[in-house]
Amino acid sequence: MLHLLSVNDLTNDFLYSLWRDASKNKGKSNNLLKGKVLTNLFYEPSTRTSSSFYSAMSRSGGSVIPINNVQFSSVAKGESFEDTITTMSQMSDAIVVRHSENGAAERAAAVSSVPIINAGDGNSEHPTQTIIDGFTIYNFLNKDLSNLRVTLVGDLKNGRTVKSLVKLLSRFDNNHFNLVSPEHLKLSTSLPKSSYETTDINEVLKDTDLLYVTRVQKERGSVHDYSLSLNQLNELPKKSIVMHPFPRVNEIPVEFDKDKRAKYFEQIRFSVWCRQMLLQKVIK
Amino acid sequence: MLHLLSVNDLTNDFLYSLWRDASKNKGKSNNLLKGKVLTNLFYEPSTRTSSSFYSAMSRSGGSVIPINNVQFSSVAKGESFEDTITTMSQMSDAIVVRHSENGAAERAAAVSSVPIINAGDGNSEHPTQTIIDGFTIYNFLNKDLSNLRVTLVGDLKNGRTVKSLVKLLSRFDNNHFNLVSPEHLKLSTSLPKSSYETTDINEVLKDTDLLYVTRVQKERGSVHDYSLSLNQLNELPKKSIVMHPFPRVNEIPVEFDKDKRAKYFEQIRFSVWCRQMLLQKVIK
Amino acid sequence: MLHLLSVNDLTNDFLYSLWRDASKNKGKSNNLLKGKVLTNLFYEPSTRTSSSFYSAMSRSGGSVIPINNVQFSSVAKGESFEDTITTMSQMSDAIVVRHSENGAAERAAAVSSVPIINAGDGNSEHPTQTIIDGFTIYNFLNKDLSNLRVTLVGDLKNGRTVKSLVKLLSRFDNNHFNLVSPEHLKLSTSLPKSSYETTDINEVLKDTDLLYVTRVQKERGSVHDYSLSLNQLNELPKKSIVMHPFPRVNEIPVEFDKDKRAKYFEQIRFSVWCRQMLLQKVIK
Repeated sequence: MLHLLSVNDLTNDFLYSLWRDASKNKGKSNNLLKGKVLTNLFYEPSTRTSSSFYSAMSRSGGSVIPINNVQFSSVAKGESFEDTITTMSQMSDAIVVRHSENGAAERAAAVSSVPIINAGDGNSEHPTQTIIDGFTIYNFLNKDLSNLRVTLVGDLKNGRTVKSLVKLLSRFDNNHFNLVSPEHLKLSTSLPKSSYETTDINEVLKDTDLLYVTRVQKERGSVHDYSLSLNQLNELPKKSIVMHPFPRVNEIPVEFDKDKRAKYFEQIRFSVWCRQMLLQKVIK
Repeated sequence: MLHLLSVNDLTNDFLYSLWRDASKNKGKSNNLLKGKVLTNLFYEPSTRTSSSFYSAMSRSGGSVIPINNVQFSSVAKGESFEDTITTMSQMSDAIVVRHSENGAAERAAAVSSVPIINAGDGNSEHPTQTIIDGFTIYNFLNKDLSNLRVTLVGDLKNGRTVKSLVKLLSRFDNNHFNLVSPEHLKLSTSLPKSSYETTDINEVLKDTDLLYVTRVQKERGSVHDYSLSLNQLNELPKKSIVMHPFPRVNEIPVEFDKDKRAKYFEQIRFSVWCRQMLLQKVIK
Repeated sequence: MLHLLSVNDLTNDFLYSLWRDASKNKGKSNNLLKGKVLTNLFYEPSTRTSSSFYSAMSRSGGSVIPINNVQFSSVAKGESFEDTITTMSQMSDAIVVRHSENGAAERAAAVSSVPIINAGDGNSEHPTQTIIDGFTIYNFLNKDLSNLRVTLVGDLKNGRTVKSLVKLLSRFDNNHFNLVSPEHLKLSTSLPKSSYETTDINEVLKDTDLLYVTRVQKERGSVHDYSLSLNQLNELPKKSIVMHPFPRVNEIPVEFDKDKRAKYFEQIRFSVWCRQMLLQKVIK
């Protein structure tokens, strides 16, 4: 693999190898990328994702050029996106791109001489989040990622993390999906084989191994916000887990943070573990 | 000590140990924090302080995630301060926080799993500046920090560096304070035992071992600005020193910079020396 | 050399030594500046130049304090430029300065205790770009930088890279300059010995070893934009090279990028190679 643009670039072999390495290394620092330089090229601000890559690269012994507000920077002034990518590919060993337009990562890969890692483009893909989400399941549910009752709640139409996770989990055996969203924010990709759509979260809480919560952004014009109460969350089976790609606003009450089913902060910790392994695999 | 939130967290033993180490090391680079990651989380811009921590961490062999404009960043979008802190504590080994609200550092410490270093919250505390100010006195006046005539001038009401320095020097024997400010900007905390309040700096210049100058910010609505002339500064005893936490506007004329009593640039150099030792003590 | 402020600070001996080192090292990482800290102090945004220094410092084993929007930062609040420079010189081992005002680099050097590297001040100087441009010629045309037909096109009045390159190439034997610009954007410095001024690029394309293209910025009010077509570029001799300091807007069509005469992306790669060697020579 030269570039990581889509979940489709992630073979199961690659994923399992990365997850095994991450399990073994557990975020410990090493020197494998000493002297290497990563560019964090963020056209949309995303401090969480850029910091996670920053930490991962630093803990691998490398350096990061942080470009977090391209709209304020000179590379943006009249210059084409392709020229910016070509320029940064002359100066660094890999480029992490976050962009508001679908397909931006592919356009970057078309001209770059170094690996492009898609850190979210438009509402289409966010494959490194999927690596992390998969790893969280691998750790806390089962290493096969199979036989799971997966409840996805929120804006399933625009949420790129949801779409990528469904893509991933559909690869494995016997997973069932409960898709909970307002009518106008239903999953727009083709439905997975075993799935059930509803607008009412209460119908499916008990039938859940993994509750994956996302935010319904106000600008999407929803009256539902799917804020869950402690009582609702306590309907979840004891062995289930709750994930959230963050930021959270009101979807999960902070009182639930100490519950052993809450795994969203582990997800963040795992983001560094996994990206560290990814960078070490991708950068030559 | 896990967190450094207030001058009260700094025992004399800790301070002396840090100052002795800083005296010995003199800002030289080492590798003690290799593989460690510091987050610089600045809700208020402060290039001086963030750069000083950046340099200190770099000279200790570690890396820094620079988050300098949280208001423009995604961690701020609707996310609670506590979630931002929890998030960054999953990705790094310590967090330096600068915030405009009093008590922000305590709120951060309440949720963080890694050390929080308060780099100024509201007008209440700025303990690392106090470490530096104390070290400057330790170096240029006396190692006991005692028997000093200390003249503090400017906005004593809102200046957090002043309040913290008074707190520190009050611990040691026989220090006297001249407190010079406009009436409405007087020190609002309880007065130290031996102190004299005035609005007229000329009364006390000759009676000064340490002149600590701060700025009266225009927005505080003062007619006094306490800009000192070269003539006034030359009233100071030969063995006295002049400090300023910077930035300076007109308080001290640049012509005084070469005077051997001017120690404000040494203060800045010492900021890196001291923060280097602090990070090495705090980060595990 | 303590500071690099102007092309005049670059002796031929220094340049040849740097170019030989860069040819040998080819951008490989080393550890020569381990523990050293560079400040990137950019009063004007220039992601390309700041990233190039960042990469060069990182590949030398050192760290960079990135200050990319001084106008938004506290060092700018009421503080003099000189105090900002003095402050940063207490915290770092060298300072790269980019500023919108002519002479800013000299003002910085007057107060700094560490080396100042001018990364462009106003429309006067940009000496590190000249090192890179010279190195590109050294690599692709001849090591003597002599006997060249040099065609410079665009805004020759305000373009600091053009003025510095003319200064450099005038040192070497038997170079001829074709100066192509709108009437009101002619080279304003004294003309080199052998030179020919014109507004029509087509007159001189065949008589060119090096075509150096720059942008005519819209705000300069030109009707000419000197966008070159593929047909025009194909008039250039087979052994000629085409350079551009970037960003490009429409001056050179992307279809030409794959032509072996196009060397502008190599220029960017060389920017890191050369700045790496420069930092290693300048920082003690």
